[in-house]
Amino acid sequence: MQSFMFHNPTRIEFGAGAADKVGPVCAGLGRTALLLAGQGSARRSGLLERVRTSLEAAGLRVVLHEGVRPNPVLSHVQAGIALARAEGVDLVVAVGGGSVLDSAKAVAAGACAGHDVWDFFCGQAQVEAALPLVAVLTLAATGSEMNGGGVVTREETREKLPFSSPHCFPRVSLLDPALTLDVSADQTANGLADAFAHLLEPYLSGTDPRPVVQLELKEALFHCLLDSGARLRRDLRDLEARADMMWTATLALNGITSVGIGPTLWPLHLIEHSVSALTDIAHGAGLSALTPGWLRWRLEQVDAETIQSRVTRLGERVFGLASGGPAETIVALETWYRSVGAPASLAEAGVDPALFADIAANAARTARAWGMAQYSEPALGEILRRAAGA
Amino acid sequence: MQSFMFHNPTRIEFGAGAADKVGPVCAGLGRTALLLAGQGSARRSGLLERVRTSLEAAGLRVVLHEGVRPNPVLSHVQAGIALARAEGVDLVVAVGGGSVLDSAKAVAAGACAGHDVWDFFCGQAQVEAALPLVAVLTLAATGSEMNGGGVVTREETREKLPFSSPHCFPRVSLLDPALTLDVSADQTANGLADAFAHLLEPYLSGTDPRPVVQLELKEALFHCLLDSGARLRRDLRDLEARADMMWTATLALNGITSVGIGPTLWPLHLIEHSVSALTDIAHGAGLSALTPGWLRWRLEQVDAETIQSRVTRLGERVFGLASGGPAETIVALETWYRSVGAPASLAEAGVDPALFADIAANAARTARAWGMAQYSEPALGEILRRAAGA
Repeated sequence: MQSFMFHNPTRIEFGAGAADKVGPVCAGLGRTALLLAGQGSARRSGLLERVRTSLEAAGLRVVLHEGVRPNPVLSHVQAGIALARAEGVDLVVAVGGGSVLDSAKAVAAGACAGHDVWDFFCGQAQVEAALPLVAVLTLAATGSEMNGGGVVTREETREKLPFSSPHCFPRVSLLDPALTLDVSADQTANGLADAFAHLLEPYLSGTDPRPVVQLELKEALFHCLLDSGARLRRDLRDLEARADMMWTATLALNGITSVGIGPTLWPLHLIEHSVSALTDIAHGAGLSALTPGWLRWRLEQVDAETIQSRVTRLGERVFGLASGGPAETIVALETWYRSVGAPASLAEAGVDPALFADIAANAARTARAWGMAQYSEPALGEILRRAAGA
Repeated sequence: MQSFMFHNPTRIEFGAGAADKVGPVCAGLGRTALLLAGQGSARRSGLLERVRTSLEAAGLRVVLHEGVRPNPVLSHVQAGIALARAEGVDLVVAVGGGSVLDSAKAVAAGACAGHDVWDFFCGQAQVEAALPLVAVLTLAATGSEMNGGGVVTREETREKLPFSSPHCFPRVSLLDPALTLDVSADQTANGLADAFAHLLEPYLSGTDPRPVVQLELKEALFHCLLDSGARLRRDLRDLEARADMMWTATLALNGITSVGIGPTLWPLHLIEHSVSALTDIAHGAGLSALTPGWLRWRLEQVDAETIQSRVTRLGERVFGLASGGPAETIVALETWYRSVGAPASLAEAGVDPALFADIAANAARTARAWGMAQYSEPALGEILRRAAGA
């Protein structure tokens, strides 16, 4: 095992009625809350009003900042920061899924910075302070509710980049699986695919030849995703399956299963961020659409030995293949993606091959910044062709 | 899934040289440290001096309080509290295994209380504050390095009771698996058995008929214990196996695998505390010695349906039994205990049957206090007879 530091201070309140704790939870954290939400679903369901009422009943002043897009954009974050400063906000409350949480983290950090918030994303600055953040989760997918990271798109340059900081962990995240009962079949599939990728990329990463604990824990969570995916395919309103999926997605990216493997590489996320920056498809759909093609490409590279054995192990331990190599695992993965309603190729995701050159150029720029020389523009073009599908 | 709160604020620093971070880590937490240690092994290995040197180099004054026994006793905790007060201690540093950590938590809480520390153990008082605690771990077993609980024995009444508080989580725990390379075969077996029990009791607990995530995660950690146990049987100085065992034991009792199942019952711990209170055998050995007999008794009770299916699942998923019921699982468990050098019966642990009546009376007293009516004195006597062995 490699040396590691693990510290995850987020408090989770999980279960029926968790959202109604938002007022009491926030009362000790600030006096004026910036309430971030998306494009209307929390308003339509009544949740936004419930949260506002709870906050106001606890004595907080509420400043609303709605309109976070599914692939959240920098301009909306910057507007949130300006609003937070103008209104003397000392606390950020996010009501939504990963996009709202990611935006909220950027607002919380940006409001405390003396420079543009984008500096955090392009590596020009480190977060040194952030407003406290409390989250009310409405979508099981990104794990943003229990980590310090976020991803935002800068519209004018089509850069979709992540940032993370220990200061950006939510203080408290309120997780009520009942709030996800009405999530559509597509969005549910996207969430499953996203959490799957959060497990898969570290599963295939690292220099340790046999990271026993980390592989075992991730296989446990893979099983949970397969299990809740199957139950939700039968009934999208299966509350127990929603609860299992929600807690699994949180655990998939809260650090606990991956510390000690050394650096995780995120090539699928790198490429997907360029896909969704240019096409605005859902992040989870982009990930599942890319994964089989990327795997086939990756397994042909000269340094594929560890990944070959890991993909074989994934087939045996997760997809229950009695034997067979990586190729069979990829077929099983495609079958699983399609079974839950996630695209298994870029064609299935509706991505026009005419965009591949732009996507490759966009992703190559990030790969250079991240020192991932293997992901040159020609290599990325080849990966996209392998992922193109029919 | 049941509603739950999860909040584990302990920071883990894991890997080679972790112990040398103790000075820098503590510098921001206090000025005078009470340094708790056991009965000489940390002194003999040079670790105690290394820790003291690191603390003093960071500008802290160090007050030493050695002599914590393997089953730690109240009188030593009380002496530590008196010393902490006399010396104006504002920070507790524990160097050792679970006993030292448990004692350190009691000292840290007791030093802030206006009453006897035992009140926390017998439910007369709740911890409202504690001195900050930093741990340097020398034994993989109890998980005390990442939770807020501890167990101490009151000598005059032979009561061995737990307490726990959110205030008693270590601020930072320093985990260097190399510090466990010289742990004896017996102590290694005890650690494996202890961590196994920390997984097993919640695995068999709860009212949820199918806690998918929690069962999967625990099965992953069971696999890790079997794996590191087998490697350590071949070579006690296998550093990678020591690392896997250490992180597994931490995860086995840090809450992450068990939240959401509802209340965990701890009957094996309850009975074992009485065994070790009266015989002073190692806690892990007491647990493995009791488990097969307790399981056979438990499976015959009228409310055993869930436990029967869980024990069967344990056999299939953990011990790889193709089929068979609970009885075969228990045999596989006994075989595993013996394979790692842990006793599978009270006879193998050297517990004299003449003590069974006293043990049963002692445990029945705790069971009454905890509202576990099923564990009457006659029932406990029967469990001990079932666990007696040859």
